[in-house]
Amino acid sequence: MSRTATRTARAVHQVARPAGLPTAEQFAFVADELPPPAEGEALVENAYLSVDPYMLGSMAGGEGGYELNAPLEGRAVGRVVESRSAALPVGTAVIHRQGWRTHAVLRREEVRVLPDLPGVPLSAFLGVLGGTGLSAYVGLTRIARLAPGEDVFVSAAAGGVGTAAGQLARLLGARRVIGSAGSPAKTAFLTERLGFDAAFDYHDGPVADLLAAAAPDGIDVYLDNVGGDHLAAAIGSMRDFGRIAWCGAIAQYATTPPAAPHNLFELVGRSIRLEGFLVRNHLDAQEELYELLAPHLRSGRVISPETVLDGFDRTVDAFLGVLGGANTGKMLVRL
Amino acid sequence: MSRTATRTARAVHQVARPAGLPTAEQFAFVADELPPPAEGEALVENAYLSVDPYMLGSMAGGEGGYELNAPLEGRAVGRVVESRSAALPVGTAVIHRQGWRTHAVLRREEVRVLPDLPGVPLSAFLGVLGGTGLSAYVGLTRIARLAPGEDVFVSAAAGGVGTAAGQLARLLGARRVIGSAGSPAKTAFLTERLGFDAAFDYHDGPVADLLAAAAPDGIDVYLDNVGGDHLAAAIGSMRDFGRIAWCGAIAQYATTPPAAPHNLFELVGRSIRLEGFLVRNHLDAQEELYELLAPHLRSGRVISPETVLDGFDRTVDAFLGVLGGANTGKMLVRL
Repeated sequence: MSRTATRTARAVHQVARPAGLPTAEQFAFVADELPPPAEGEALVENAYLSVDPYMLGSMAGGEGGYELNAPLEGRAVGRVVESRSAALPVGTAVIHRQGWRTHAVLRREEVRVLPDLPGVPLSAFLGVLGGTGLSAYVGLTRIARLAPGEDVFVSAAAGGVGTAAGQLARLLGARRVIGSAGSPAKTAFLTERLGFDAAFDYHDGPVADLLAAAAPDGIDVYLDNVGGDHLAAAIGSMRDFGRIAWCGAIAQYATTPPAAPHNLFELVGRSIRLEGFLVRNHLDAQEELYELLAPHLRSGRVISPETVLDGFDRTVDAFLGVLGGANTGKMLVRL
Repeated sequence: MSRTATRTARAVHQVARPAGLPTAEQFAFVADELPPPAEGEALVENAYLSVDPYMLGSMAGGEGGYELNAPLEGRAVGRVVESRSAALPVGTAVIHRQGWRTHAVLRREEVRVLPDLPGVPLSAFLGVLGGTGLSAYVGLTRIARLAPGEDVFVSAAAGGVGTAAGQLARLLGARRVIGSAGSPAKTAFLTERLGFDAAFDYHDGPVADLLAAAAPDGIDVYLDNVGGDHLAAAIGSMRDFGRIAWCGAIAQYATTPPAAPHNLFELVGRSIRLEGFLVRNHLDAQEELYELLAPHLRSGRVISPETVLDGFDRTVDAFLGVLGGANTGKMLVRL
């Protein structure tokens, strides 16, 4: 397509660094004229933006932190609307990291071209088929090495990673899948919609007691999204040779230092493995996940739960919401 | 051999439960008449007794705890001196769990018959070829999966597991081996006799600083014998994808609850694995260890360092000594 005029695009800038949890005042919506794509570039119109707790770390600044007064970054899916790249024809669906804005100018090496999976909505690539689903998949398979017949506990189970983890654990042959979440509506969602065998609201008492009641025979695998009390409870309920895949700690992103579990030493006596991981080191598992999930997404056996806020103006609200646990499933902004 | 008369044997009994570290008054030396072996039994005269920190846990009582006013138990090596078991002819060298006594009456299934390894002393089967050596071997291979060219840190490095670990790490192709110990004499022993590349005395400052100075480029593998500050220091110095094999915590056997490392959350960001293990779940690796070490023990490239107290009367002293760090290498009693 030939060169066209500039186009007005909008972006969210960070204008101040958060100390602890961020506030809306630390962000600004800025309109700018985007130049037309140069040779080798394509203009992508974003369709869905992902807002994720990990971004808080980059907002605090330091090495690898976000620049102030520049568009923030985050995962987004969209379609090419103008192109000077033969590898990215108009209409191509892509996922990329220039979120928090309405449009992005991108080169082939900056995007992942999304496969055509009939019956699978584009937003699923930011959910169960995206980084959160991949975190759950890698955590259960490569890190925890879940075996059929084992019992799995998932914290933050109504969140993006958690909803994927519960459904994936089932597909991978888990015997019982137990989840924790932050409200009765969420725990009902887990057991009624996602096939969890048990779920508890962590406000209802000490987490160790709630987990022991939900999994009286113990657990083999724990996918940790939360740290703190949940990690200690999981250690307490772990069987011999249990594995904990630790992929982040929402409750602790904004606090330093995070509390370590008082019962960590139990890892020795019961031969438990606690392993941290970052999904970015396992992107080679992405195709495997598409292949595993596509038929189940089509049949409806697996869903990609989303909390969608409509309109680019809601981007900051969505981010503050996910930090506060306002989402069920992946928190997304639809443009 | 035909039935003979009873024989006077001596044993150490526990007469009171320790609250925290034990004292000599909680033990008693008791002489008893041992009946001659019955059909299928052999009388073993113990040659060396092993005293180990883990025994403190069983002394505290509870499930699996030692009975009061009965012979204590622990690993020992000895030779059959009288036998009514065809599988255990007189002269057979065995390792077994009826230590803390001069003689033991045993059945075939209660002992491991020791191989004849010319040039290897019997005491080595309680040291580098025994449970401590096996702990080090399993920790480095099966748990930490040490790869050639990696850097290894060992705490309590002058102890039984530590001295084995340092030498095994070298045999397994480690690039640098760093140890911590509790005195200048011990650190000198590590670098001068055992081939450690660096060693520090943990009394000389914060362990995190001492380790960072000894391993300025970080470490890939940590074999933890200690917990506490050492574990936190090792986490702080770990490279991406580092592994911690956690086989016990001497400093913490007598305290509840043990302190967890303040920086545990770093496991996530650097994809670190922390895995507890018990050597008793890996006894099938024993023959592999004999095979690996026998030629090096004969050539002197590997030694089985021992602190030996002479005489059965020193058994309690030896145990209190190993809890207090009085040993270099395996603490043994020679009868």
